[in-house]
Amino acid sequence: MACCGGCLCCQCCCNEGETRTPEELTILGETREDDDEILPRKDYESLDYDRCINEPFLEVLEGLDNKKARKYEAIKWILVFAIGVSTGLTGLFVDFFVRLFTQLKFNVVGQSVEECSENGCLALSLLELLALNMMFVFISSVLVLIEPVAAGSGIPEIKSYLNGVKVPGIVRLRTFICKVTGVLFAVAGGLFVGKEGPMIHSGAIVGAGLPQFQSITFKKIRFHFPYFRSDRDKRDFVSAGAAAGVAAAFGAPIGGTLFSLEEGSSFWNQALTWKVLFCSMSATFTLNFFRSGINFSKWGSFQLPGLLNFGEFKCPDGDKACHLWTAVDLAFFVLMGVAGGLLGALFNCINKRLAKYRMRNVHPKARFIRVLESLLVCMVTTLVIFMSSMTLGECRDLVSNVNNNTSTQGSVNEEVNSTIRRFFCYNNTYNDMATLFFNPQEVAIHQLFHQNATFSPVTLSLFFVLYFFLSCWTYGVSVPSGLFVPSLLCGASLGRLLANVLKINFHMQIYSGTFALIGAAAFLGGVVRMTISLTVILIESTNEITYGLPIMITLMVAKWTGDFFNRGIYDIHIHLKGVPLLEWETEVEMDKLTASDIMEPNLTYVYPHTRIQSLVSILRTTVYHAFPVVTENRDNEKEFMKGNILISNNIKFKKTSVLTRAGEQRRRCQSMKSYPSSELRNVCDEHVVVEPTEEGQDILQQMLERRHAPYPNLYPDQSPSEEWTMEERFRPLTFHGLILRSQLVNLLIRGVCYAENQSSASQPRLSHSEMTEDYPRFPDIHDLDLALLNPRMIVDVTPYMNPCPYTVSPNTHVSQVFNLFRTMGLRHLPVVNAVGEIVGIITRHNLTHEFLVAKLRQHYITI
Amino acid sequence: MACCGGCLCCQCCCNEGETRTPEELTILGETREDDDEILPRKDYESLDYDRCINEPFLEVLEGLDNKKARKYEAIKWILVFAIGVSTGLTGLFVDFFVRLFTQLKFNVVGQSVEECSENGCLALSLLELLALNMMFVFISSVLVLIEPVAAGSGIPEIKSYLNGVKVPGIVRLRTFICKVTGVLFAVAGGLFVGKEGPMIHSGAIVGAGLPQFQSITFKKIRFHFPYFRSDRDKRDFVSAGAAAGVAAAFGAPIGGTLFSLEEGSSFWNQALTWKVLFCSMSATFTLNFFRSGINFSKWGSFQLPGLLNFGEFKCPDGDKACHLWTAVDLAFFVLMGVAGGLLGALFNCINKRLAKYRMRNVHPKARFIRVLESLLVCMVTTLVIFMSSMTLGECRDLVSNVNNNTSTQGSVNEEVNSTIRRFFCYNNTYNDMATLFFNPQEVAIHQLFHQNATFSPVTLSLFFVLYFFLSCWTYGVSVPSGLFVPSLLCGASLGRLLANVLKINFHMQIYSGTFALIGAAAFLGGVVRMTISLTVILIESTNEITYGLPIMITLMVAKWTGDFFNRGIYDIHIHLKGVPLLEWETEVEMDKLTASDIMEPNLTYVYPHTRIQSLVSILRTTVYHAFPVVTENRDNEKEFMKGNILISNNIKFKKTSVLTRAGEQRRRCQSMKSYPSSELRNVCDEHVVVEPTEEGQDILQQMLERRHAPYPNLYPDQSPSEEWTMEERFRPLTFHGLILRSQLVNLLIRGVCYAENQSSASQPRLSHSEMTEDYPRFPDIHDLDLALLNPRMIVDVTPYMNPCPYTVSPNTHVSQVFNLFRTMGLRHLPVVNAVGEIVGIITRHNLTHEFLVAKLRQHYITI
Repeated sequence: MACCGGCLCCQCCCNEGETRTPEELTILGETREDDDEILPRKDYESLDYDRCINEPFLEVLEGLDNKKARKYEAIKWILVFAIGVSTGLTGLFVDFFVRLFTQLKFNVVGQSVEECSENGCLALSLLELLALNMMFVFISSVLVLIEPVAAGSGIPEIKSYLNGVKVPGIVRLRTFICKVTGVLFAVAGGLFVGKEGPMIHSGAIVGAGLPQFQSITFKKIRFHFPYFRSDRDKRDFVSAGAAAGVAAAFGAPIGGTLFSLEEGSSFWNQALTWKVLFCSMSATFTLNFFRSGINFSKWGSFQLPGLLNFGEFKCPDGDKACHLWTAVDLAFFVLMGVAGGLLGALFNCINKRLAKYRMRNVHPKARFIRVLESLLVCMVTTLVIFMSSMTLGECRDLVSNVNNNTSTQGSVNEEVNSTIRRFFCYNNTYNDMATLFFNPQEVAIHQLFHQNATFSPVTLSLFFVLYFFLSCWTYGVSVPSGLFVPSLLCGASLGRLLANVLKINFHMQIYSGTFALIGAAAFLGGVVRMTISLTVILIESTNEITYGLPIMITLMVAKWTGDFFNRGIYDIHIHLKGVPLLEWETEVEMDKLTASDIMEPNLTYVYPHTRIQSLVSILRTTVYHAFPVVTENRDNEKEFMKGNILISNNIKFKKTSVLTRAGEQRRRCQSMKSYPSSELRNVCDEHVVVEPTEEGQDILQQMLERRHAPYPNLYPDQSPSEEWTMEERFRPLTFHGLILRSQLVNLLIRGVCYAENQSSASQPRLSHSEMTEDYPRFPDIHDLDLALLNPRMIVDVTPYMNPCPYTVSPNTHVSQVFNLFRTMGLRHLPVVNAVGEIVGIITRHNLTHEFLVAKLRQHYITI
Repeated sequence: MACCGGCLCCQCCCNEGETRTPEELTILGETREDDDEILPRKDYESLDYDRCINEPFLEVLEGLDNKKARKYEAIKWILVFAIGVSTGLTGLFVDFFVRLFTQLKFNVVGQSVEECSENGCLALSLLELLALNMMFVFISSVLVLIEPVAAGSGIPEIKSYLNGVKVPGIVRLRTFICKVTGVLFAVAGGLFVGKEGPMIHSGAIVGAGLPQFQSITFKKIRFHFPYFRSDRDKRDFVSAGAAAGVAAAFGAPIGGTLFSLEEGSSFWNQALTWKVLFCSMSATFTLNFFRSGINFSKWGSFQLPGLLNFGEFKCPDGDKACHLWTAVDLAFFVLMGVAGGLLGALFNCINKRLAKYRMRNVHPKARFIRVLESLLVCMVTTLVIFMSSMTLGECRDLVSNVNNNTSTQGSVNEEVNSTIRRFFCYNNTYNDMATLFFNPQEVAIHQLFHQNATFSPVTLSLFFVLYFFLSCWTYGVSVPSGLFVPSLLCGASLGRLLANVLKINFHMQIYSGTFALIGAAAFLGGVVRMTISLTVILIESTNEITYGLPIMITLMVAKWTGDFFNRGIYDIHIHLKGVPLLEWETEVEMDKLTASDIMEPNLTYVYPHTRIQSLVSILRTTVYHAFPVVTENRDNEKEFMKGNILISNNIKFKKTSVLTRAGEQRRRCQSMKSYPSSELRNVCDEHVVVEPTEEGQDILQQMLERRHAPYPNLYPDQSPSEEWTMEERFRPLTFHGLILRSQLVNLLIRGVCYAENQSSASQPRLSHSEMTEDYPRFPDIHDLDLALLNPRMIVDVTPYMNPCPYTVSPNTHVSQVFNLFRTMGLRHLPVVNAVGEIVGIITRHNLTHEFLVAKLRQHYITI
């Protein structure tokens, strides 16, 4: 009784766990709060990337000529352009207000500090800063209360979505508003969070929402635009949007494209990738156009890179001996990679424990507790910033420092110098800790990358330690929060520290900026464990191809080192959410399992022609999202146990499934009639409890009452109906297609059926647009007004089913099943034996790592 | 009777075409020399990317633990690194010698010209130049005679290979040597060819050959290294090598990775892509390391970009008003894109006609004619260079020009200035035409990109026209020849022309270099029609992210404009070669066809247990590369025509195939026994001509004689054996797996069989390494010493077949079939109906655009 692509109404099956053994629980992947290990939850729905070519679709196809196809293509291009521009504008919005608020804050506080250093009223300055920060963080936190999905960086959610899991609410307009506004205030509030992750999430929401021309949050936003109403198109647009988000955040259009490929796409689609790249480019250049115009009044120029950029790494013109990096440095970079990997693993480990603690102790409590936690984090952060700047910063000589700089570096350094802070220091010296803390994070990164010999080793070490722990604490607090910038800062300070040590203590000829950059890459790589896309994003952010090799090697080493201990931070958070993510490929060992080992053998099926009462009954008593359409193949039955070995091999899987089918049959017989199998009807009639009436009220009342009943346990260990003969148990079911729950409900709602005495040709036909009109929220069977339905009418589902989904044989090995499933973005994969009978169904939940491991353990036990 | 993944021995079936109707010919894709349209040839073999998980493989798997898997992975990393380094060194080798020879040539000739300008002995200079050039081109051309596959750019061949077509000889060591040495001399010989395409091809050969540790060209190179002996691994390494080639040629590691994805991969494989990127990086940085060391004595530095780079685009420091490009320029870029697309289409059109002319008039003649053609091209090119420099160049003032330059641009311009040529001009002036022609092409590109106001509009126009036609003529001559650099030069001159006009005639504030760059991109895009990878390659070559948007828009417009007229030059040449390339996706219209419309319904099959004589007979009388393993399902037979509609729908495809099967059966009965189907044996015995003897000599003699007999025509219009009853015709064959020709031959050679009175368990077992030992050249059935075989022995093929290849149902629509086939890199896709019987097989040839179009036409006729 499977076909479960996740269960929407998980409240109906929440108490089924009680009747199960721990072994079963493990395989089913139920979450046990007290367990240390969190298993994938089954209440996530999958997206369906496979096209369902049924009759309504074919009708559309018939009307489609090349001209229309080209128009459709043109609309897509316009839409990706619109997505890119909108994402760029979102980035602009966030950037503008973050800049505004931060400037405001630092101006007010800076002035106050300078005044108070003389008057001794520093407590007042601290209070000012505290008040401002906590106000900002409070707003941000309240916004996340409105839409809890808006918390965090959003990358785990987008990764899940692109992987094919529908996480509720993540691509809604409400989430967008909360996320964008929230991140703005969180960054302005001085928390150690970045705005890059949320930018990516925002881009993805724009991608998902814009082509739909409607909104679930605001019902009034609804244009007639009947295109792209499918998971397939939506996922394509989401990947374009996410790429645009990366592009806007880092000024890295190629990196963005690769990000959406790395995180999302299971296959390389030329046309799509080209659109995604265009979308990313549009986002980058929209942002640059407006930023050049607004910030520098250079309208029409596009010279500015993305929101986060690392400035220009360049040797001073006169210095011929200077190299950005040499072969010798590579050895240090490898070491830094190892260090980054270790520290990243530590970061992830601490953060995971924190997140688990939060899940147990913070989340179950009243919501405002989360706001309090945010405020606490904000307060501590503010205090740390202020206190450490006051007491731990070192006053360094400004003039000598400027002289040290080779003056030819010009404009870059001028900009960097202007952001030096003199808090608590005498004239002509400056406070190196305050320079890092009392500046926007991007500026601090610039400082670490491009300012020569500015920071004392003590300051750098302290800065790293403080930043490490505070940002680790902050990630997971209920505000929108990115991780990129804090990680970069941590890593950069460490890299810079190493550079200073090498330069001053060992007198090596190195370029400090490169070391800071590599340090940043190493730590970031150790935390997030991204590979290709991160390499490209960093290369594009530095705008220097020659950094390709060192960055790549560092990231590689960091990833390998980190993977030795735990997973990347995003994967950890996905795991904590219990999302059934599919990895890139299965482990080699898994090939010891075959499709028959991992499939769900318990099926709920429908016949090509089914009575409405049966359909309603099936839909109300199961939670599956797809049902195989089968016919009984009674004549074939007697041949089963004889015949050649190969066939009987295939059939051996039937035994368990047939046993179950008997049980399921018994249950279904209580309320259902199937057509045209007359024997089946006879079998059923013996068990019918309530006589079907013309009004159907009684039976429907029964069904309504059954609505919240627990989902019956139909496991093989249940004994089947005793009176069944062996032959009846081995009923072979020939597989003809898959029909989705949403399609069935749609057919019922629109009255697609015919009377018993008519031919099925008299059944009304639905068009493709009628079938997809309600996307993405199809009506639920429980919302259906059953009084309007005649339970004796018959529905012919064949025109609407997917007549030829991809199938596999029971002997197929797991790697092949996995590849097919993942690459084609499937939601249900029927397992069909050598004589065309369905023996099971594979969904995402049967392919998660945890499930496979459990099955493999079982496999070893049975050998 | 299909399963033809192309036919190796096309000579055996070359006269079958005569008995076919033109309609059939169209569908089968026979080439007719006199036809205007060239159809995909059927004698190309496909690569098999799907893993065959049979018993020997499972044995290997059983012995595999995580440690071994990790070791295997480590070997892969080392190998990709080695491929990258080797490709980089290859690039270095080519670059070094091209540089050496070119310098030598220009020094000799330049000196001679300067002397002769005064003495009036210019004819002598011309002769010197001619002699040198023709000597170089002669060597290059002779090398291509040795290995004809080494001609051209190699990109069409690599594209075909990565698409899954085995083009004979393209990844051999001999090809590598000829290609690398050939391109070196072709470029040094002053032909208008680039070295980038051949670099990519060389990289791919390194990728294919290095992990095999053996060579077919040099039999002695053979280490014991039993890994990676499969099409799957080889194709992965080839894509890494090709990417490394791009990376070395353009200094574009990301572009290289995307190139191999765009041209090759059908799906996004995270782990592979990461390795490919690493390989590209290794190549780039190996090259940079050695070039920095050799050319600039800066060992340990990696600052130099790839072989082809575009220099630094930079506004002079003092000039605040200067922008590389502005929003207004974008409009011009779009126009340039259109122009580039039009000119590219013209180029492709002319080149296609030329290629066809060559195929008809040059190729059939003696081989040395091709050498003569190369020499002719060389002579004309040399004359044009010399004459146009002498008569058409304009003498421009050197001093004023240098003054025009903003002096701050420093080193770049110094380098550019040093390459100015003063031929035929008085002191302090220089010859602008000679500056372009008497320099290596890369230098000329630099000139066009970075030299301010150096070239007169007349010179630029003339240069474009000459270069356009000469390079068009050259591409296709039998020397290794790339197209990138000539196209870039053409386009750059055009872009520069536009810039000059806008600057001087309209007094616009523009940056000429940008216009030259965009012009180059537009023309190159118009010619090759690459999208994502070309964008990234160009961005990386300029090392300037801000050029992303204009380059992308230009390429997009150029591609769309060009696609209006014809295909990209590489696709044209692939098409001319008749390679059955699979596009990215099918057209929407094709979904009107289903698998049953396009499949090959005529099957040659084997039984799970087959006599050696049958196997030999099948292998000798057919050319297919895979055979379905089937059992007869006689009991099922009577049910066929009754039962429900859905099944009989599925079965209707049987009719044609069964008719054919009857004919095929008759043929096979002449020499074969099948086991265990005893009825079949009875049917066959009626037709047996030669009584099988213990020695089997007579029958084998017969088979040997049949070796070169034409492949019998088994088309549906052939009437089947009349005496067959309806029941016999509708023999259902249950599908159990696929076995490859190479596997069958291997089984025969290694004596895997058992005697009739023994159990099949007594059959010797082959290990996985024994099965793959002979990769990639498996022995042919005709090389088999039949005297060693006992024809009455029985082979159990089930342990060696692929027991669960992906299959589709006959109703599956073409887009789904195509996606599955392309994405999974399949070679044979069995079509299996709802009751598990095989009704046809789909191979690459059934999915080529031409075949689908022909089938669609048929479909419209039958409606």
